[in-house]
Amino acid sequence: MRDFKVAICQMKICGDKTVNINRAVEMIEEASKNGAELVVLPEIFNSPYDTKCFEIYAEEFPGETSVEMMKVAKKCGVHLIAGSIPERENDSIYNTSYFYNNRGEMIARHRKVHLFDIDIEGGQYFKESDVLTPGDDFTIADTELGSIGIGICYDIRFPEYFRGLSDMGAEVIVLPAAFNMTTGPAHWEMSVRMRAVDNQVYMIAASPARDENSSYISYANSRIVDPWGNIIAQADIDECIIYAEISKKKINDVREQLPLIKHRRRDLYSLEIY
Amino acid sequence: MRDFKVAICQMKICGDKTVNINRAVEMIEEASKNGAELVVLPEIFNSPYDTKCFEIYAEEFPGETSVEMMKVAKKCGVHLIAGSIPERENDSIYNTSYFYNNRGEMIARHRKVHLFDIDIEGGQYFKESDVLTPGDDFTIADTELGSIGIGICYDIRFPEYFRGLSDMGAEVIVLPAAFNMTTGPAHWEMSVRMRAVDNQVYMIAASPARDENSSYISYANSRIVDPWGNIIAQADIDECIIYAEISKKKINDVREQLPLIKHRRRDLYSLEIY
Repeated sequence: MRDFKVAICQMKICGDKTVNINRAVEMIEEASKNGAELVVLPEIFNSPYDTKCFEIYAEEFPGETSVEMMKVAKKCGVHLIAGSIPERENDSIYNTSYFYNNRGEMIARHRKVHLFDIDIEGGQYFKESDVLTPGDDFTIADTELGSIGIGICYDIRFPEYFRGLSDMGAEVIVLPAAFNMTTGPAHWEMSVRMRAVDNQVYMIAASPARDENSSYISYANSRIVDPWGNIIAQADIDECIIYAEISKKKINDVREQLPLIKHRRRDLYSLEIY
Repeated sequence: MRDFKVAICQMKICGDKTVNINRAVEMIEEASKNGAELVVLPEIFNSPYDTKCFEIYAEEFPGETSVEMMKVAKKCGVHLIAGSIPERENDSIYNTSYFYNNRGEMIARHRKVHLFDIDIEGGQYFKESDVLTPGDDFTIADTELGSIGIGICYDIRFPEYFRGLSDMGAEVIVLPAAFNMTTGPAHWEMSVRMRAVDNQVYMIAASPARDENSSYISYANSRIVDPWGNIIAQADIDECIIYAEISKKKINDVREQLPLIKHRRRDLYSLEIY
């Protein structure tokens, strides 16, 4: 890997797909002008985060959204992990993140592996599995920037997924997400930081801006966290772009000084990936 | 399991073994008088936390320290996870936690599985593996209070260990520990909370009080955390006893409302224990 600047576009998402796509393009262009070589969008950035919308906004690949993303990645010469969108294939809909390289080619596709079904007493209710099909793959891409893994939102709840990406060589893990006003304050920042610390990777965790009028209110608070667990860039609730420098030396230093990956007792346990 | 009150004795540890044992006994008696049915001591409570001391303070089982702990557990009728002590067996020394039931019988023994070797530039240096031998077991005890797992300090760095205990049925995990002034502020509270959230268990994390004059300065800050990640009891840096109520209903509610354990993709990955 090499050092590079990453940007998260914490964009505000509305009910109009074209407006969402155009807003994403504008923010990616701005991030690129400011030197970002990897740009990250939030989960379900072209549609409201609402199970009723997923079928309506879903696209096959390539589709309206992905074509525009490939164009802007190529035009700006940035690597782009374009959040996620509802993706249709045959009769199924997935929550899918496409990774485009700086030539505008789709180099990896992550379909959310863990679907978000929650029912908190007096808090959040949501059931993705009503309409979505889960993906079945750990997603990682080797790029000129480094080895970059992808998870989506609820995937972060499962330490196995991040350990698996780390075992596969991930140095940076990108997480388009949309935690809510119940789980966000309780678990969001801590989860992002802990997966970074446990696996000694950078975590790039991108949320939509908060919209109090939407049916599902995003916690926002995008975070970029280094392998020691330090927050090196953070957003509040409004639309914004945050930036951070990714340093190969920082990863090496942390892995050498506190050798958690090396100290695992592989003679006693191991994570098996099927 | 049933509901019960737990206490952490965040005791101040000195260089005199007998003083340490007597102080532990006094604090256990006080915790018992205040209704605690499970009492927890910090890591290496009968000796300074210093590799040079471990051989000198080490005991075979039963020894001076364990005999006194069995006595006080029986006398008070409490379950006691007596932190840890340097334990000698044959030519090896372990960092060992004994679990005594309320009849004063030793019902489980955890030998620290992950030895703490750290060398932070400008921060903490420590190398347990110079003098200690690691244990090889996931430690869990079925008691009338519930299914209680034990880890020691650096074990918390490894999510596999806690996932393993959870898979074995742990509802409460006790962690005698002694984080330091480098890793404590950076990672201690977050680690305790995250293992609780990921595994939907109570975490009982016991540190020694801070002593600025010791060679290894404990971060202190003992914590009791519920399965949602809420801190339900916390110590500052001074010697004290903290208490919390452990609720079976809370575990059930969290596991039902946010079914992380159920939502694992066991078709894609699994933790193998050897």
